[in-house]
Amino acid sequence: MLEAFFQPKAVAIIGASATEGKLGHSVLANCIDAGYKGNLYPINPKADVICGYKAYPSVLDLPETPDLAVIVIPYNHVPAALRECGEKGILAVVIISAGFREAGKEGVEREREVVKIAKQYNIRVIGPNVLGIIDTATPLNVTFAAGTPPRGKIAFMSQSGALQTAILDWSLASDDLGFSKFVSLGNKADVSEIDLMQAWADDPESSVILAYIEGVPNGQEFIHVGREVSRKKPILVLKSGVTESGSRAVSSHTGSLAGSEQAYDAGFYQAGVLRMDNLQDLFDSARAFADQPLLSGKRIAIITNAGGPGILATDTLERNGLHLARFEADTLQKLKAYLPDAASANNPVDVLGDALGERYAEALEMVAQDPNVDGLLCIVTPQAMTEIEETAHAIGKVSQHTSKPVFGAFMGEARAKDGEKILSSYDVPNYRFPEQAAKAFAAMRDYRLLRDRPDAEAVEFDVDRAAVREVFEKVRSEGRVSVGEAEARRVAEAYGLQLPQSKLAATADEAVAFANEIGYPIVLKIASPDILHKTDVGGVKVNLNSAADVRDAFDLIVYRATRYVPDARIWGCLVQEMVSMDGIEVLVGMNRDPQFGPLVTFGLGGILVEVLKDVTFRIAPFGRQDAEAMLDEIRATALLRGVRGRPPADREAMVEILLRIGQLVTDFPEVVEMDINPLMVYESGRGAITLDMRLVLKD
Amino acid sequence: MLEAFFQPKAVAIIGASATEGKLGHSVLANCIDAGYKGNLYPINPKADVICGYKAYPSVLDLPETPDLAVIVIPYNHVPAALRECGEKGILAVVIISAGFREAGKEGVEREREVVKIAKQYNIRVIGPNVLGIIDTATPLNVTFAAGTPPRGKIAFMSQSGALQTAILDWSLASDDLGFSKFVSLGNKADVSEIDLMQAWADDPESSVILAYIEGVPNGQEFIHVGREVSRKKPILVLKSGVTESGSRAVSSHTGSLAGSEQAYDAGFYQAGVLRMDNLQDLFDSARAFADQPLLSGKRIAIITNAGGPGILATDTLERNGLHLARFEADTLQKLKAYLPDAASANNPVDVLGDALGERYAEALEMVAQDPNVDGLLCIVTPQAMTEIEETAHAIGKVSQHTSKPVFGAFMGEARAKDGEKILSSYDVPNYRFPEQAAKAFAAMRDYRLLRDRPDAEAVEFDVDRAAVREVFEKVRSEGRVSVGEAEARRVAEAYGLQLPQSKLAATADEAVAFANEIGYPIVLKIASPDILHKTDVGGVKVNLNSAADVRDAFDLIVYRATRYVPDARIWGCLVQEMVSMDGIEVLVGMNRDPQFGPLVTFGLGGILVEVLKDVTFRIAPFGRQDAEAMLDEIRATALLRGVRGRPPADREAMVEILLRIGQLVTDFPEVVEMDINPLMVYESGRGAITLDMRLVLKD
Repeated sequence: MLEAFFQPKAVAIIGASATEGKLGHSVLANCIDAGYKGNLYPINPKADVICGYKAYPSVLDLPETPDLAVIVIPYNHVPAALRECGEKGILAVVIISAGFREAGKEGVEREREVVKIAKQYNIRVIGPNVLGIIDTATPLNVTFAAGTPPRGKIAFMSQSGALQTAILDWSLASDDLGFSKFVSLGNKADVSEIDLMQAWADDPESSVILAYIEGVPNGQEFIHVGREVSRKKPILVLKSGVTESGSRAVSSHTGSLAGSEQAYDAGFYQAGVLRMDNLQDLFDSARAFADQPLLSGKRIAIITNAGGPGILATDTLERNGLHLARFEADTLQKLKAYLPDAASANNPVDVLGDALGERYAEALEMVAQDPNVDGLLCIVTPQAMTEIEETAHAIGKVSQHTSKPVFGAFMGEARAKDGEKILSSYDVPNYRFPEQAAKAFAAMRDYRLLRDRPDAEAVEFDVDRAAVREVFEKVRSEGRVSVGEAEARRVAEAYGLQLPQSKLAATADEAVAFANEIGYPIVLKIASPDILHKTDVGGVKVNLNSAADVRDAFDLIVYRATRYVPDARIWGCLVQEMVSMDGIEVLVGMNRDPQFGPLVTFGLGGILVEVLKDVTFRIAPFGRQDAEAMLDEIRATALLRGVRGRPPADREAMVEILLRIGQLVTDFPEVVEMDINPLMVYESGRGAITLDMRLVLKD
Repeated sequence: MLEAFFQPKAVAIIGASATEGKLGHSVLANCIDAGYKGNLYPINPKADVICGYKAYPSVLDLPETPDLAVIVIPYNHVPAALRECGEKGILAVVIISAGFREAGKEGVEREREVVKIAKQYNIRVIGPNVLGIIDTATPLNVTFAAGTPPRGKIAFMSQSGALQTAILDWSLASDDLGFSKFVSLGNKADVSEIDLMQAWADDPESSVILAYIEGVPNGQEFIHVGREVSRKKPILVLKSGVTESGSRAVSSHTGSLAGSEQAYDAGFYQAGVLRMDNLQDLFDSARAFADQPLLSGKRIAIITNAGGPGILATDTLERNGLHLARFEADTLQKLKAYLPDAASANNPVDVLGDALGERYAEALEMVAQDPNVDGLLCIVTPQAMTEIEETAHAIGKVSQHTSKPVFGAFMGEARAKDGEKILSSYDVPNYRFPEQAAKAFAAMRDYRLLRDRPDAEAVEFDVDRAAVREVFEKVRSEGRVSVGEAEARRVAEAYGLQLPQSKLAATADEAVAFANEIGYPIVLKIASPDILHKTDVGGVKVNLNSAADVRDAFDLIVYRATRYVPDARIWGCLVQEMVSMDGIEVLVGMNRDPQFGPLVTFGLGGILVEVLKDVTFRIAPFGRQDAEAMLDEIRATALLRGVRGRPPADREAMVEILLRIGQLVTDFPEVVEMDINPLMVYESGRGAITLDMRLVLKD
């Protein structure tokens, strides 16, 4: 898949130029300098030979059909050139040229034309507006960048070409940052991060996929593909961009809690993708994944010649859910017997400031063999007697015959570099600050947890879709978007949610009759499609104990509603069973994210939802494991498990409701917002009752 | 203060040696190489001349009294040498030698002896067990480190000498990390971080104080001195060490919430000290403070030649409470007129990938003059046409004639270094990743907020100390540590807290009589010094409406208490006014931290305190501003301000109670734990009632 881009047997460079300083020259020169071994065809109507290669006026004139064409000509000529590629049968094209979607309205139009031509000829396009692409194994470099990075195991894609030039500058100057692929995504007119993830999933040259992106247009597909690919190798993503949720109008609780950043967090998690905080963490973790075996547990051993840095690394490990390994008695004994008296055999192992390479080597060996150790971090501060080279070799050698990840932390700069260079020859990453190494271990641990979690189990409940469809049609036929309470009840019933007994009474007489049927005490609520927050207008009366009370309350509620919201359509009052309030109030909600679709929220309900914002999110559809996890992710999760002698809340009921809601919002994409607040959850076995449900349909 | 250490006119090095590889040689050689201009006296009974300097057998033989002596001889000779220093009248001694407190029991004894001698002769001691000290302005280097760092404005102290060797290695190899002072704290037998903060407060050579520490022995003094010094210059601290709170036995809510890390956070905050997360942040921020003017607001302008890195910097700014400046219309107009069409004049200003030095210069100039801009970040990715040198000069020049802080972010490595070197000549710090620059701005902002907050206003209430003393004496005379409820009431009353009406009834008859006095409904609670969690043993009955109810409840409660806690001393029941529960339950607590003393907790009370741990902390004594701030710092603070039509809670009442409790726990150091949970807070003007107060005294 996409092999033509990365392992082409022949390449045409449309716009290749002999003039230095021109992009068309840089691309050709890079391709030659990188040592490309296939046939290389400069396309330029104004030259016969460029850089020693025979040039052709057009791809149509070529003696063969190249697998790949690279277009680096002014934008107005791009459509014609692309069409010629299609006619020649070229199926992979990189469009470096800028002047498309990024350049305003006309550019958008131009890009649309390019997409149309590509579709017509079945051409896959990377770009436009890219730096180009590099494959260090082929080797191929068709970019206008400053060179070719060293070969490595990191496959890197970036939506910012300029960012890539900076990373390349770093890579060219350092010994320990190599790449397998180096691809600029540009405008993503065709080939997207999703295609590249898929293409690189089984690439033996790449052991980790890195992406800098500014947005994911198709969130659901991203989750689907990410989940597959992340089982095979880690995907690390740095996603930039401040949320725009502030500018969105929101009318529900869920809406005010869930912005696009929450959707990205949930989506990336569900895709099995590790979301990184910043560039440094992205590349620090990438270097760990690239060359070292995966961390199998969370127990780290630290060997250091200085106490302070060892403690700093420990702090960072513990803050990130890892901890120090507890050595076997045997290991401790061996360390104590070997090390000087003043040394510490306990983890972090302090081999003391005067440790030579040999002492490091012995200690590392003993620790590496301990079955309680999952990963090793070797910290080296450059003290007077420290043997930088010997110590680096010792670390490298241990890494060669252990299946555990080994990181170095040669601290400082001048002498640290010497150690770094040697470590790099053993494929051991070095970190100048021990905290960075600890963070890289944490990323490995996070990936393993993501990779090893069970696949989301599809759950399908037997529901009454037709009933819901009927409700929604009625709402729309009346020109409304907000679903009334009685209608919402029908939707909830159709999807198997438990509700308090309730009837709509148009008159006070009806209300009394229904109340007698249901039994006292009774709750009365205003029924109007135009009143969302009923309590705010005095539209709810609870604990009504007699027919007289019900009659008074009906009149009062209706009077108040008409006074506060004069234009509201009043259907009467809902007469409801007064349910027991001795449960826990939670919230289940949904709002539709433009990128990822239905973002389901779970959290503490009632008044606390607004104050504490103690909520968690998943993109629907999701499986039982996700629903279970949601209950554990909120801060107040202990409240659900029962505290201070209270019984635990009905977990199964909450899980089922989350799954049923996930199904509802997946079945009906026209639902743009949904809130159940509160859902009253009783103790285990007693279920949960939907006390208030609101739905808003697409405009 | 401590001038003798940093600007000595003459220095004796006790243990100076001609033999390379010996510490005594390294110290002497460093002192010579650093260019020390005073009189230098090697002390060594076995040599006449060392490295060209006349050697003396003892300081007693010196022709003058040096200001400073450095001891670098085996530990068993240190006491004698120190005594000789004292006899000679030397008042400042650095003890480099190891083998003291860090080396076990005998070492502790040896260190005690050193301290005793120092006190006897009024000698100030740095060490023992240190790398030594450096002052680059004097210049003085009496360490066994690998060299002398470049001169700069950072005064650095470290409890880990090895860590310093790593930082020195970095400093020696880079152009932009210079130091004014470089001091190893070692065992802190005498001179501590507090002394050095004080000494450096008015040092014109140092514009920022940096400390790596593993613990603060005297927290109250640290807060006091830190507050003074931090008004003059920023103090950045990296404190390592995992909390040991897990191993402490805790019996109160507050105890389980507040560990030593919380005390450090509160203590550092109150000291005006910025607590840094890791080494990299520590030095990244230090470089900003060292040479750039302080950030006066929070509006940052970004000028970049690439969109992606600009967004990444923006994300980090916003995550840390800063934001992008909104330019004046005039600035926007000028930028638009000057920049190419495809550029973005809005912040972040994108000068495009083909920007030469001049375009950067012009844009920087326009932006620097905008009154809405408080700080400037200039991002440079190394693209094909980028003029690294010219751009660096442009940034440097703008920084010279603006009073706003200016940071560079030349990204990458090879070409970035060239820019970095030039920036450094203008004292502009460079950051390889734009996120780091954003974090440095955030540290500047944090410092300003700390520096500019009003001084803690001392508040003293008129209280009845004698009553409390009497209660505590009674408790202790009975061999108890836990204060009974009736006793705790007396303490609360003595410190002016409002309590529900309450009387202790020894018999059911008494209970009925009291209930009739107070008026129904009534609450009955078991009264026993041995029962802490009354509800757990069924020891509380509420809403008792008649004499008969009170009688039944009394018998039931006493029966249950004796059954569940057979050995408990039962004093009877408290008969209490049934207070209105329509307030908000909060918690006010205190536990005594070994370093900082009384750590006062404020947070949500009732059942939620355990589940949400929504609490905040201050070290007592604290002022009104701190008490006010505590109310705002909890996550549920909106609940106190009133949500969904609820009235705001009585803020003044909470503030006053926090201050009164601060006074109580300061007045009585024997109180080791204290809880008011819940404190029922009513709407503004209606006060707050202490429903349950518990106190534990020192064993």
